[in-house]
Formats: sequence, C-alpha cells, structure tokens
Amino acid sequence: MRAVVIGGGPAGMAAASRIRKHRPESEIIVIEKTKYVSFALCGIPYYVGGVIKSLDDLMYYPPSFFVEKRRIDLELEAVAERILPAEKKVVYRKGDEVRELEYDVLIVATGARSRLPPIPGLDNEGVLSAHHLDEGEEIRRRVLKSRRVAIIGAGLNGMEFAENIARLGKEVHVFEYFGWPLPKGLDEDMGEVMKELLSSAEVKFHFGTPVREVGRTGEALRVEAGDSSMNVDLVLVFAGVEPNVDLLREAGAEVGETGAIKVDSKMRTNLVDIYAAGDNVEAVNRVTGRPDWMPFAQIANKMGLVAGSNAAGKETDFPGAVRTWTAEVFGIEVAGTGLTEREAKEKGFDVKGVMIKGRNKAHYMPGSGYLWVKLVVSEDGTVMGVQSIGKGALARVNVAATLLPYKPKSRDLIFADVGYAPPLAPVWDPIVVAGRKIDPVL
Amino acid sequence: MRAVVIGGGPAGMAAASRIRKHRPESEIIVIEKTKYVSFALCGIPYYVGGVIKSLDDLMYYPPSFFVEKRRIDLELEAVAERILPAEKKVVYRKGDEVRELEYDVLIVATGARSRLPPIPGLDNEGVLSAHHLDEGEEIRRRVLKSRRVAIIGAGLNGMEFAENIARLGKEVHVFEYFGWPLPKGLDEDMGEVMKELLSSAEVKFHFGTPVREVGRTGEALRVEAGDSSMNVDLVLVFAGVEPNVDLLREAGAEVGETGAIKVDSKMRTNLVDIYAAGDNVEAVNRVTGRPDWMPFAQIANKMGLVAGSNAAGKETDFPGAVRTWTAEVFGIEVAGTGLTEREAKEKGFDVKGVMIKGRNKAHYMPGSGYLWVKLVVSEDGTVMGVQSIGKGALARVNVAATLLPYKPKSRDLIFADVGYAPPLAPVWDPIVVAGRKIDPVL
Repeated sequence: MRAVVIGGGPAGMAAASRIRKHRPESEIIVIEKTKYVSFALCGIPYYVGGVIKSLDDLMYYPPSFFVEKRRIDLELEAVAERILPAEKKVVYRKGDEVRELEYDVLIVATGARSRLPPIPGLDNEGVLSAHHLDEGEEIRRRVLKSRRVAIIGAGLNGMEFAENIARLGKEVHVFEYFGWPLPKGLDEDMGEVMKELLSSAEVKFHFGTPVREVGRTGEALRVEAGDSSMNVDLVLVFAGVEPNVDLLREAGAEVGETGAIKVDSKMRTNLVDIYAAGDNVEAVNRVTGRPDWMPFAQIANKMGLVAGSNAAGKETDFPGAVRTWTAEVFGIEVAGTGLTEREAKEKGFDVKGVMIKGRNKAHYMPGSGYLWVKLVVSEDGTVMGVQSIGKGALARVNVAATLLPYKPKSRDLIFADVGYAPPLAPVWDPIVVAGRKIDPVL
Repeated sequence: MRAVVIGGGPAGMAAASRIRKHRPESEIIVIEKTKYVSFALCGIPYYVGGVIKSLDDLMYYPPSFFVEKRRIDLELEAVAERILPAEKKVVYRKGDEVRELEYDVLIVATGARSRLPPIPGLDNEGVLSAHHLDEGEEIRRRVLKSRRVAIIGAGLNGMEFAENIARLGKEVHVFEYFGWPLPKGLDEDMGEVMKELLSSAEVKFHFGTPVREVGRTGEALRVEAGDSSMNVDLVLVFAGVEPNVDLLREAGAEVGETGAIKVDSKMRTNLVDIYAAGDNVEAVNRVTGRPDWMPFAQIANKMGLVAGSNAAGKETDFPGAVRTWTAEVFGIEVAGTGLTEREAKEKGFDVKGVMIKGRNKAHYMPGSGYLWVKLVVSEDGTVMGVQSIGKGALARVNVAATLLPYKPKSRDLIFADVGYAPPLAPVWDPIVVAGRKIDPVL
C-alpha cells in the first residue's frame, strides 16, 4: 500500500505516523511545501518575540526523525498542484520539476491560510500576515528593524503577536473592529473584563476602531483608522483565517456549509480513498450537532489520528469537538469552549449569559486572585458554552469542554468532583459556583 | 419551622444557609463546639507555617455575618450531648449549663476527627494531632518552641504540615509506614515519582519506617522507628481520620459499611427529620456505585447544600462523588480521583495501571516541565481512577473526575476537547496522551 499525504503539518504527520503504526509494510510519502514538518504554528509569535530562539524548536520532531525512525518519505519544498481522483494520482511541483505520484490512499491536510479583510492598501510593501514558519522568520526580521508596529485584529493571533512584539521594546498599536479583544471567543461582557485587565499592558489598544485604509507616506506606512491616522514601520494583519480547500475542491471534493471540506466521521471525503484532516476540514460541533469549522491545533491533530487509522484499515470515528480555545496574553489567562452567547443567538438558540467572579485558590492564601466564568445557558438549562478569564481559566474551561458533549445542566457542573487544596483551588471552585448561579435549588 | 444544625463547619453552615434561602421565615440555630464557624480546616498547616497570619482568616465568613446577614443563631462553644429523636430534641452543654432545643428538622454535621494509630506512647505530653482550628493554634505555639519535629504519617495532612514546619526553619522528620508518600492516594509507582521529586525537599523522609513507640528521655520525646531512635521536641500524628458518628449512632442512626453515617440521596438518615452531611457521612462513590467514605471538603460542602435544600422542602439529590483530592507540597502539585490500582484490586476489580510522562506546556516554551499521569483501567477498558504529579496535575485530574461518572473509555479521554496554547498546555495534552496509551487504534 502506498499512502500519500499532502501537508506535513500536525494533522498530516499524525496521519502518516498512524499509517506507519498500523501498516508497517506500507510506503508513505508526505508532500510539504516548506522545509518544515510537524510544526507548531502557534509558537510563531513566541519566536518573533525572542522567547523561542530557533524555528527548529517549533518542530515536534525534525524531518530526519520521520525519515529514519518512522520510514516516512518527505518531499519537502514541494507543492501539490492537482489531485486526479480517477487515476489516483497527485501532481506536484518540486523546484522546476513537475512530478506525479500514484496513491492507494491519499490524505489531504492542507490546513488554513490567513484571510485578508477588504481594507484598501493591504498590498503595500511592509504589510504582512503569518500563517507559516517561513512567514514567522520574515516577520521577526521586519519587527526587529521597526520602531512602531500596527496590528490589525485583536483575535488570538493578533494578541499573541502584540504581546511578543511589545516584549522587544517596540511601540505596538492594535486596531480592532469590535469594541473588545478576542471578539470571536469572548462575548462583550467578558470582553469588558478583559479590557480592564489589559489596561496596564504595554500596548496601545484601539478597540471599536476599524482600519479604513493602509497607505504610504514616504518610508512609513500610514494606518487610517477611526477618525485618525498614524505612521508606522510595519503592519501585521490577523483578521482571521480560512480553510485551504482549493486543491480538494478542484478535484471534486464536496465543500460543506462552513466553507471547509466535508468529511464523514471516518474523515473520508466524497472522493474514493481520499481522506482529509486538519484545519481544511469541518467536523461536528458536539454542542449543536451541526457541522462547524474549528481550526484549532488540538482538534487538527486528533483528526489526523483518525484519518490515518482509517486509511490504514483500522476503522474509528472522529466524534467532533466543542471548539475549545485558550491563550495567555499579557499575563492574562483566557479560555472558552462551545458557543458564545452572541453566536448562539445568531444560530437561533434561546440562551442567556450568566457571569460569576470567583477565586482561583483559597481566599486566605497569598496570591489568591479572581477568576471570571461566564456560562451560556439555553432555555431548558443546558450549558452550551463557557468563557473564563484569570489564572486557572483553562482548567475550568477544560472541565466544561469535557462535559459539553453530555448536554450538561447546572447539576453536572455543581457535582463535578473537582479537587480542592488551599494553594490550588478554592473549596467552592468557580465552575461549581457558576453552576449554582443557574440552579433553582442548590 | 425551626431547624437545628449540629456542627458549624462548612457542611453545617452550607445547610443552614440553604434553609435560610428557601425558608426565609424559619428559625435556624447552629450548635458549634468551638468559637469558629465556616472554617477551612485545610488551611491549618498554612497557619502553622505562618503563611496565614490569623486563624480568623480561615473562616469564609465571620460569625457576625451569619447572625446579621443570614439571621442564623449561633450557639458557640456549645457541645451537643444527645439527640432525642422521639421528642425531636437536642440536649447540649454550654459552659456548665445543660440546655435542650426542640427541632422540626435537624442537620448533623459533626465531621471527622483524627484517628490515632496503635503506637504506644502517643499519650505522652508533646504528642499532638490537629483536626480543628483550636488545635492549630496549640500546634503553632509548640512548633515555634521546637527545634526538631517528628511527623507520623506522610498523607495529605502530614505532608502539608511537614512543608509548613520546615518553612519555619525547623528540622522535620516524617515517618511513614508505607514505602512512599501519600500512600492512600498514590500507587507505589506514582509514589516513587513523588519520592524522586521530593529528594530536594528540606525535610528528612523516613519511608517504610513504622514508628514502634514514642517515649521520653528527660525533656525530649524519643521516637523509636524502624531500627533506630531519635530525640525530638514535638511529635505530630497524622495517621488518618475517622467519622464522628457517636452522637447520631447513640440516637439510633444507622451506620453504613464504611463506618460513617448512612444517608439516602436526600441526605436523610433513617431517623425522622434528621439529616446528616459532611465528613461524618458516607455517600455513593460514582466509580463503583457503592457507598464510600470521602472526607474531602468540597464534597462535604455539597452534601451540606443538598441536606439544607431538602430540609427546607426543596427536594434534590446528592449524586455521590469520585473522591478527588489534591495538594501542593514542597512545590510539587499532586492530585488523584477515583480508585487507585491497589484499592481497585483490593475491591476485586480486575484492573491494570498505565503511566505516562507528558508535558505541562509546549516543549519549546520556557519553563515547560513534566507531568505524570497514571490511569487505572478495568478489563473492559473503563477508566476507574487517575493520579497525576507535576504542575497542572489538578487540571488533568479534574477533567478525569468530571468524566468518571460516565464510565469513560480511552476515547473519552482522547476526544475531550481540552484547550491548547503554548504557554498553558501542549497540543497533545497529557490526559489525551494517557488515553492514547490505552487505546488499541488511536
């Protein structure tokens, strides 16, 4: 059996490794457009900020590991150009050469790419975005030469880059269309909490301030935002990502309602022997039961596992996910899972939001701090989403994320037997307190 | 309605507060033997170590809060002596005076007490144990005057006191019958990991060293342990606790197979209108479905809520718990939930243990460290218990604790959508890695 994998990111390499595990005799070839495989894109901001010294550190394993230990052939700096499903072939370009490769099974893990918003002037020299390690290198070089940097978008990436660039002593301005940070993951009420906590950050935030245009004034870039204008040396755009579906769509693969590739629970596309996994694929949101596009690394990896196992003949299902996200920015931990109140309402659910402020450890312990938890609760009392801010936010969101597929009610949060010790958690854990807030009895 | 509560600890005060909430017109009287209510016993070691300056800080609310804000009458320094179920009366002593109090509903929350092991000489002056705030005060006084302190028992309490007394610059020796620390919560293999991590602690551990006798040599206490002998100024015994059931048992309440008071899911004893809640009560272990005694504060509190709600006429069930515990000792975070491998085997389950060593954040981030996770897995692949050591242990155990009532299999751990961000968690979270370790496919 010959397995071909397009895309050497986490999903692709997870799939390749599973095939090797279950089919020791198979031939496995990975086509990857960069010189990296198994890369942690989420580490790029930390490379730009100098927290991580080398891009090589962002690979979980070096290419040689896959070649030597797992006998996976790597075609690096090779770009897949066409899939021919009828002939079971992939056409790809390596340097000037166009090559073909037949497959028995094909896994397409082409990931996502930055999406540029419709702002005039983003084609100016000095306007960059990052969605790959190579781009990280370029951004770092440019940032080091800059004095003042503008970031468009206060989403996860924008915030992480802002923190890391500020760490280098640069003047950083973040422009966000919405009136609060992380607007995709946080509702406005939680966004206001986050804004308050960010007030001491060494970055200038411009919330509710859409960028109208990026122009040029001599050497400098000119950012026109809100009703003012500012000269900067570099503009970074983090206004969202979109799934990289072109290759599969052109081959006849079905694209789902989310815009990402549609697969079944075995990660099979509608094309024979072609699987897809990772950020180019949609999956079931276990809160709504509907297809959702959830471009998060931990989900992509698991999709890769499932695709690889099935491609190797070991049948197994991907059950979906609940879109858990988290970040630590400017020392503030923040996390969420499931639906926000805003999104739930947009999708037609009758929900309300309930927010509590709790402690992250016993009130009498030094360093005890606050933790905010917001529940998004449907009319029948089912928790559909959770957001949290403060040290320990992810731990609380993880408990909720684990429960969401079971359609939890207040009692399920209250009676989750989460542990207590004065230095680690209060006896009434914030997730329990949040559950009590929506319980009619307890 | 008059509600009487015996015991002003967390369970008793949670019950009293729920009654006030649901029955604004009722009379509520709490009989408490000390001058404290709503106290955090788990904070005592930190008071002894000077981390917390005043015992008053260990009360969640001062007595005046309950009296003034919640209109709950407190009979402090009053000891309940008898319950007369037929007459619906409590007989208690306050100072020299014996008083009676009629009740419509009675909640008995008498908690647990230290259990002394059968070691000769524990009645010597200078041998102490702590299970209440008053005893914490006494211990602190004695510790401050001591140069060398022996602790019998390396359980949760013993370890927390050892750390805190070492913090005061005292020479501390911990004697443990078992060959590893926290033997009730950790299996030997995890205990070995813990021992290794403890090797730099400023305390001398004597594992596998039962204390044979405590004697006296002049001013000093003499600890005879293993095959040697040592003079110390103070001996602290933390060899376990037992439920305080005397009062209820003498009134005719049924004691369960665990030795704690038997209650139904409404926290009702077999005596009419008498509820019990907290560390004196057994409850369903949601892993085995069997009664279990789980003397942990977060569980006691929830029992109090349920007892109070039912006593006030709002019917609700306590579903049980999974016995989650955690501690941070000598800078090492450790936690567990469900059954240990040893306990599961003793109870007749056919289980195996599986241990993994993972990361607590992305490998390339500064400060990334290791985290150990052990799963206890039944023959049919159901996870029955989890132990974890390392920074982030509690967060992983909490996810498992939340899943245990659902009889989780490997896939439930793998597909728990726990969040990822380089500074907070690795993309393959240790709980997911542990799930993969026992999965035949993924």
